[in-house]
Amino acid sequence: MDIYLDNNRMTRVDEQVLSAMRPVLEGEYGDLFALHSAGAKSRKVYHEALDKVYASLHASSDDTIVFTSGGAESNSMVFQSTYLHYILTGRKNNVIVGERESLSVMKAAKFLESQGCRVNYLPVNSDGVVESERVLDYITPRTALVSVSMVDGESGAINPIEEIAKICADFDVPLHCDATHAIGKIDIDLQDSGIDFLTISAETLHAPAGTGALYIRKGRELIPLIHGERGGAEILRGGPLNLAGIAGLGKAVELASDALSFEMEDVRELRDSLEESISGIDGSMVFVPWAMRSPNTLLCAFEGVDSESLLYELNRDSIQAYSPSVNPYGNWDSKSIVKAVDADRNLRFSTIGFALSRFNTEEEMEKTAESIKRAVEYLRSFSPSEEKR
Amino acid sequence: MDIYLDNNRMTRVDEQVLSAMRPVLEGEYGDLFALHSAGAKSRKVYHEALDKVYASLHASSDDTIVFTSGGAESNSMVFQSTYLHYILTGRKNNVIVGERESLSVMKAAKFLESQGCRVNYLPVNSDGVVESERVLDYITPRTALVSVSMVDGESGAINPIEEIAKICADFDVPLHCDATHAIGKIDIDLQDSGIDFLTISAETLHAPAGTGALYIRKGRELIPLIHGERGGAEILRGGPLNLAGIAGLGKAVELASDALSFEMEDVRELRDSLEESISGIDGSMVFVPWAMRSPNTLLCAFEGVDSESLLYELNRDSIQAYSPSVNPYGNWDSKSIVKAVDADRNLRFSTIGFALSRFNTEEEMEKTAESIKRAVEYLRSFSPSEEKR
Repeated sequence: MDIYLDNNRMTRVDEQVLSAMRPVLEGEYGDLFALHSAGAKSRKVYHEALDKVYASLHASSDDTIVFTSGGAESNSMVFQSTYLHYILTGRKNNVIVGERESLSVMKAAKFLESQGCRVNYLPVNSDGVVESERVLDYITPRTALVSVSMVDGESGAINPIEEIAKICADFDVPLHCDATHAIGKIDIDLQDSGIDFLTISAETLHAPAGTGALYIRKGRELIPLIHGERGGAEILRGGPLNLAGIAGLGKAVELASDALSFEMEDVRELRDSLEESISGIDGSMVFVPWAMRSPNTLLCAFEGVDSESLLYELNRDSIQAYSPSVNPYGNWDSKSIVKAVDADRNLRFSTIGFALSRFNTEEEMEKTAESIKRAVEYLRSFSPSEEKR
Repeated sequence: MDIYLDNNRMTRVDEQVLSAMRPVLEGEYGDLFALHSAGAKSRKVYHEALDKVYASLHASSDDTIVFTSGGAESNSMVFQSTYLHYILTGRKNNVIVGERESLSVMKAAKFLESQGCRVNYLPVNSDGVVESERVLDYITPRTALVSVSMVDGESGAINPIEEIAKICADFDVPLHCDATHAIGKIDIDLQDSGIDFLTISAETLHAPAGTGALYIRKGRELIPLIHGERGGAEILRGGPLNLAGIAGLGKAVELASDALSFEMEDVRELRDSLEESISGIDGSMVFVPWAMRSPNTLLCAFEGVDSESLLYELNRDSIQAYSPSVNPYGNWDSKSIVKAVDADRNLRFSTIGFALSRFNTEEEMEKTAESIKRAVEYLRSFSPSEEKR
């Protein structure tokens, strides 16, 4: 039986999520705007899912939530709109993003830079957490957007969004947060959060990849990325909607909200047991202090062990982990965790991560700990970098 | 039992498509780029689906096919790339689109117009078919794109893509075709077709809405709409892919190709039987001549009958149809079929369409014909426009 510990990338679909999707996949559902009973059935599914997302995130009914094809699209919507609305028109000339944001945000930031926009990258401190006060160094009345993820998908670092939101509010600058790795891991209450745009993505929530959503606070404007209209009125996202995926996402966000305390206690406990075993291995290092880290995530490094080889060794034991050294969440320009927290540079290609879910078990953690110990020892036994030490 | 005749909008998912999706929905599948067995499982699904699309459309292995979230995204990719690459840079100043294209194309064209780009709209003739020779009136060396759908989703009109492709080739102008309503309805062979970009969308192919693809001929450039990269190299579409949807789309395109002769003979025969019954009703009119029309589509109008009321009446009999008067495929600026073919203006709000699929039956057609006759008679009995006549 596989031990899947790459849950910040993709998660097994929850049976309850699948049950929510099945009627759409197996029945006759019409276009959302169609004037017949198959259309009405679709509208019911759509609105039920939407209500669940609003309720789970404590969004106000005045705010807008649109469904998208996932986190990358939601992020792209915010950045392309910022570009068209503020940068291209010359109304603003600056955006501020975390230096360890996900690929779609980093790519969008690079694009803005190529268009002459000033992009400031917020550094993370030695704990791997974005330094909120640094926003003050960069923010001006001509800043069009601040974008910082709530939780770092690689390291699990929880960023100080509340403090950043206060600064943004003072300057009336919109704040975008990618919450892909935060929903179901930490408490999110959009009321009075000061967050203007929030990205939601299904693949980390035990729902199928390919669906997501974007929350837009009342009063914030957005230009669509994929245009659409209904009865002559512009809608924020056109195209045939992934209705089955939306039904699943609605249920998944609800479940994530319901399972939050389980995640914060039981999953954390499992993660902690694995962390304890790993800390016992010579030459190991865990990134981001316990109190500042998402309950399901453990990013570490083993001196003298090549990440890719370790991934293969673990996979041989049916354990599926991830490594920022091999397949980073950001792009190749974004700051690696090793560099960001100023760790020993030799660790750069020795990082490995374990992202748990509510489906993991104690037994799996024990097996994983044993397997890691054995693999690290084995790989060090003939590693050239080991000889150097 | 419902009689679903709105298959150009959304289709019931084929059991075989669902079977192709089930392993992904019910198993453990990893990120496509992940270095472990769950990632490898995903790559296998992805490549199998991709191979099916290549084979079914007779695309060359030198060409590129990327999966997207559906037709609207595929269309938006082509237009946004055209904008960034040619219009914004001032290298070209013109695009040519059909006057009855789908919403996402019409919206994109309007956006280009707002940016100072000259947009020429190709008229359709009295048969409802785009006049290919009119391309010659507009095309210049500074034309950045010609975009014409293969089949009109509302009327079923089959456009003369081969002739348009020849003109585009003479001027070396890229040709984009939305094939959403063409795949599985007419024969498509991308070898020597002269088509540079082709839009594919799942929801008309008995696969779930929310997945699509874009074909890009070798040598044609495209700037991504949703950025991504792999190992530092730019990929054409970022973000977590809808792997289940992709598995389904692959199977769906294959099935559509396999079922083509069934569609062109058996489904056409069913459609023809309904058409015959409708033609027998006083004051009825069918748009687009038989020989120029997709085998599954029947768009008609009944004098003195309001479309919306007719939709409701049919729905009361569990028959689900569509109406361009109520919920057009294009935007409200695009030419209505009534106007386009220069029909009696009073018919503008009297159009109704029936789009069949391989799941419809002879019995359903008989029941539908009876229901239409009864409803038309009933609605005319107290229609104010009837009094006017």
